[in-house]
Amino acid sequence: MKDAPMDIGFIGLGNMGSAIAGNLLKAGNSVIVYNRTRARAEPLAQLGATIANCPADAARSGIVFTMVASDEALRDTVVSPRGVLSGLPPNGILINMSTVSLAVTRDLVTILRSKGHDFIAAPVFGRPDAAKAAKLFIPVAGPAKAVERVLPLLDAVGQKTVRFGEDPVHAAAVKISGNFMLQTAIEGLAEALALIRKHGVDPAQYLDFMTGSLFSAPLYKIYGEAIVERRYEPAGFALPLAVKDTRLAIAAADEVGVPLPLADLIRDRFLIALSRGWDHLDMAALGKVAAENAGLES
Amino acid sequence: MKDAPMDIGFIGLGNMGSAIAGNLLKAGNSVIVYNRTRARAEPLAQLGATIANCPADAARSGIVFTMVASDEALRDTVVSPRGVLSGLPPNGILINMSTVSLAVTRDLVTILRSKGHDFIAAPVFGRPDAAKAAKLFIPVAGPAKAVERVLPLLDAVGQKTVRFGEDPVHAAAVKISGNFMLQTAIEGLAEALALIRKHGVDPAQYLDFMTGSLFSAPLYKIYGEAIVERRYEPAGFALPLAVKDTRLAIAAADEVGVPLPLADLIRDRFLIALSRGWDHLDMAALGKVAAENAGLES
Amino acid sequence: MKDAPMDIGFIGLGNMGSAIAGNLLKAGNSVIVYNRTRARAEPLAQLGATIANCPADAARSGIVFTMVASDEALRDTVVSPRGVLSGLPPNGILINMSTVSLAVTRDLVTILRSKGHDFIAAPVFGRPDAAKAAKLFIPVAGPAKAVERVLPLLDAVGQKTVRFGEDPVHAAAVKISGNFMLQTAIEGLAEALALIRKHGVDPAQYLDFMTGSLFSAPLYKIYGEAIVERRYEPAGFALPLAVKDTRLAIAAADEVGVPLPLADLIRDRFLIALSRGWDHLDMAALGKVAAENAGLES
Amino acid sequence: MKDAPMDIGFIGLGNMGSAIAGNLLKAGNSVIVYNRTRARAEPLAQLGATIANCPADAARSGIVFTMVASDEALRDTVVSPRGVLSGLPPNGILINMSTVSLAVTRDLVTILRSKGHDFIAAPVFGRPDAAKAAKLFIPVAGPAKAVERVLPLLDAVGQKTVRFGEDPVHAAAVKISGNFMLQTAIEGLAEALALIRKHGVDPAQYLDFMTGSLFSAPLYKIYGEAIVERRYEPAGFALPLAVKDTRLAIAAADEVGVPLPLADLIRDRFLIALSRGWDHLDMAALGKVAAENAGLES
Repeated sequence: MKDAPMDIGFIGLGNMGSAIAGNLLKAGNSVIVYNRTRARAEPLAQLGATIANCPADAARSGIVFTMVASDEALRDTVVSPRGVLSGLPPNGILINMSTVSLAVTRDLVTILRSKGHDFIAAPVFGRPDAAKAAKLFIPVAGPAKAVERVLPLLDAVGQKTVRFGEDPVHAAAVKISGNFMLQTAIEGLAEALALIRKHGVDPAQYLDFMTGSLFSAPLYKIYGEAIVERRYEPAGFALPLAVKDTRLAIAAADEVGVPLPLADLIRDRFLIALSRGWDHLDMAALGKVAAENAGLES
Repeated sequence: MKDAPMDIGFIGLGNMGSAIAGNLLKAGNSVIVYNRTRARAEPLAQLGATIANCPADAARSGIVFTMVASDEALRDTVVSPRGVLSGLPPNGILINMSTVSLAVTRDLVTILRSKGHDFIAAPVFGRPDAAKAAKLFIPVAGPAKAVERVLPLLDAVGQKTVRFGEDPVHAAAVKISGNFMLQTAIEGLAEALALIRKHGVDPAQYLDFMTGSLFSAPLYKIYGEAIVERRYEPAGFALPLAVKDTRLAIAAADEVGVPLPLADLIRDRFLIALSRGWDHLDMAALGKVAAENAGLES
Repeated sequence: MKDAPMDIGFIGLGNMGSAIAGNLLKAGNSVIVYNRTRARAEPLAQLGATIANCPADAARSGIVFTMVASDEALRDTVVSPRGVLSGLPPNGILINMSTVSLAVTRDLVTILRSKGHDFIAAPVFGRPDAAKAAKLFIPVAGPAKAVERVLPLLDAVGQKTVRFGEDPVHAAAVKISGNFMLQTAIEGLAEALALIRKHGVDPAQYLDFMTGSLFSAPLYKIYGEAIVERRYEPAGFALPLAVKDTRLAIAAADEVGVPLPLADLIRDRFLIALSRGWDHLDMAALGKVAAENAGLES
Repeated sequence: MKDAPMDIGFIGLGNMGSAIAGNLLKAGNSVIVYNRTRARAEPLAQLGATIANCPADAARSGIVFTMVASDEALRDTVVSPRGVLSGLPPNGILINMSTVSLAVTRDLVTILRSKGHDFIAAPVFGRPDAAKAAKLFIPVAGPAKAVERVLPLLDAVGQKTVRFGEDPVHAAAVKISGNFMLQTAIEGLAEALALIRKHGVDPAQYLDFMTGSLFSAPLYKIYGEAIVERRYEPAGFALPLAVKDTRLAIAAADEVGVPLPLADLIRDRFLIALSRGWDHLDMAALGKVAAENAGLES
């Protein structure tokens, strides 16, 4: 039996948000979208979406997604005068897909609960092309009944949804920790490739050997090739966003007393990159920092 | 056409060496084996190997493998009075599979060349079960004609052999750098899992999610499960050997002026583990250090 | 000519605050004091201070000092309903001696300025005994006229006041950076002493030699002896406060894109110490972490 | 009573060695000097020294100093065909002032002892001007009777000699550990000054404040001013020598299982500096690395 279509809102139409909202439309749902820059909503209107004038309007159906760029943006979207909270009808559900701090997640959970609403954290793993192909991986956490209700929506946009209990902070932590693991893999590649290059070994051949044996996860091929080819733009995920993620990991660790020396190291590398003016480069530019530090052409 | 069987020697019959020598025998070659502790050679004798009394005797066929535990052991095996050099006939070939430093590799290349012999570096990636199954991954480097000649032997013990040119130091560097990448992946897991546990997320579920999405390479499952289950013994690869590998990476980097901060960090973690008396634990015990440092039951 | 006595308020009577307020009294000033726990104000009342019932009352004279424990405490003290802002008469001056973040300093400067008041940052270097002896070192920054006016007060409590211009953030940065330097010196001692002990050299003799030659600054003697004698309590400056300082340094650095790897390292060491339950120990316990990591009795 | 003049040899006439040998001459001793580049011995000949043709000749008096640049140089000086060992008469004494590894110290102790000679480690703290002024600080260790005998010689070249027992390795460890502490202080300065500069505080004023309060040891003034003024040449102690010292600390720590994360960090910084081609700069150039990493003019 197919799931019944639903009336939903979607706020935040960057590359990821647009792709996800598009898939929600394709799955037959009625979607009202909002984006600060209205132009980004037009393509979705052509696919059948209604364009809202404010987050509040996007929230009136009672189920609303958020996919925005930062803690501040999410907080504004929810609590500002024409924000989600002012539009959500009783027993509303907010499904946050943005990567945000545990602190803001915790705050918004409390605020929504105090108004009788449910906050669900459903951050996503995957690049924009995976979002388009509805191939995202989604850890989800929130009140069980609310999560049950929105699972069909998550299934419409991802290839795998895994429930991490009722505390939204847990899903947010999974996302933050997963991004951190990805960055450690990139830094590992960056250093190993600098070492190999400085010894005169062909880095492409080395990478090919490694990804053809132990390091078979596609991420090693993707980021390794970027580093080997010194191809850091256009950025799939730019350094200023990447360092924001590292800071989220450090903050999440610090609040519970977990040392995370790899995160410290990576944050410092990102700061070095930004101090060089590399804001427009992809986070694979950890490879550029490692090469430069090794005295290699970077 | 099948490759013609060859007369070869094999020195060093630990878990890895015994498995590899066994596969060389199964492939139809005539193998004369040597191990310091003779008892370890007996099972191979039952498979048809001849037991030599010294490295020199194992080298008399003109093609000899070495798979020993350290720089010192390799140097002794080659240059001691009854060592390989004293037994190798003119135009001999030494195929070193041991993980050793670039420095000792360079020295032995020079020594063998000065006597008219060829040194081939053919270190192997894979655990003992992969060795038994002839599923090793082998980077190989050495004089082209010598490498050509021994390729059938390497094919008999591994699933993939990749040539890295004529300088044996290059294959040694590939091995050292690959081991380093593996250790960075384990440290990444160790820190991420400590973070997730301290936040009350089920680490097994987290690992399952991660290995089912971005981190699909088997190593993440193998080491991640060991950390999640706090199962650090019996050691597949014990800490004292692991720290030796990290030191090889640091030395290889230092000699060409490449900073390798991840290696520094991992070496320090291993030293901490050893200072706790954990010599008998597997290198996955990086997870134990991370947990302890986070105030978690380790 | 002696400076004319002034009417002032003083908020925050911990070890440092009480000593400083006492010296302001001894210098002939009329002081109205406030502390959340009133009992701590009594000894100063015996020296002639008046006890206020709220920060607002302590601020009515127009010049008020704050010496509190955290960003949150300072913000509360200033902006809460019965806070400094509600008591300060026109053209008031707030002299903050607390060690706080650049962010809260910046915020309060703006808030006070918007009400026509001056915010002066005058954090202090020195332990409680130096505070008692009026031997503090004080970097001060704020509007020139306001600073001129309060210089005699600062001279009454310290041995040296240095002006760092008109932006209070600059004096706050000097304090944060100075504390960071102190922590790096302690970590340097901790590691050097672990090294020396593990080699069987008498650490007391080593310390004596070092402090008698290159490392003549008293801090090396003070912290070095604590580490050598493994005397970490009673805490002169406890670990939870110390890690707060390290976080201030990391935040100050991060906001302007400065990598501070030493601070990262020290923060991680403090987190390890706290995870061991060492909250009651002095920050010299960096020596205990280093010893434990080296497998020494700690 | 004045100490009786002695017949001694001195090998290694760099800036430090020449100054020390000069003071030994001025104290009335008869000195036979040797340097690989003979020209460097001429000025001492003018002060009354005899010039030897090889280390062996310099050692014939039975008491010989060595002040050379590296492990390799020291080993050669002692064991090469015309080295110290071949010239030293029975019951000779070698006083090594060079900064060398614990490993080479241990080896030479054994070698000399096996020939009936005594090895004394007497490394020195101080820059060339301190050497000239006979103001060095000297940790000394070796067989008690031999040390007694040479104490007057050490007193003639330093302001303070402290005995660290009979094991020469201990004095070598004191030197290595002390150099490490010095480097940590410089790195602390480098990071703190980068932080302060990026916030727009005048670094000269900051340094002045710090060295006038907590950081009163002269080294903070010396290295701090170099960093503030970005004056890294001429090098008092050049980067290639500095990184050699860091490596000695890391090796000394590694052999006894002591993690030394500060040393790792500093070594990496030095490698970065060297990869920039800064071989001719002083080790204060840690400040240049920190500035560059912070995006400051360096």
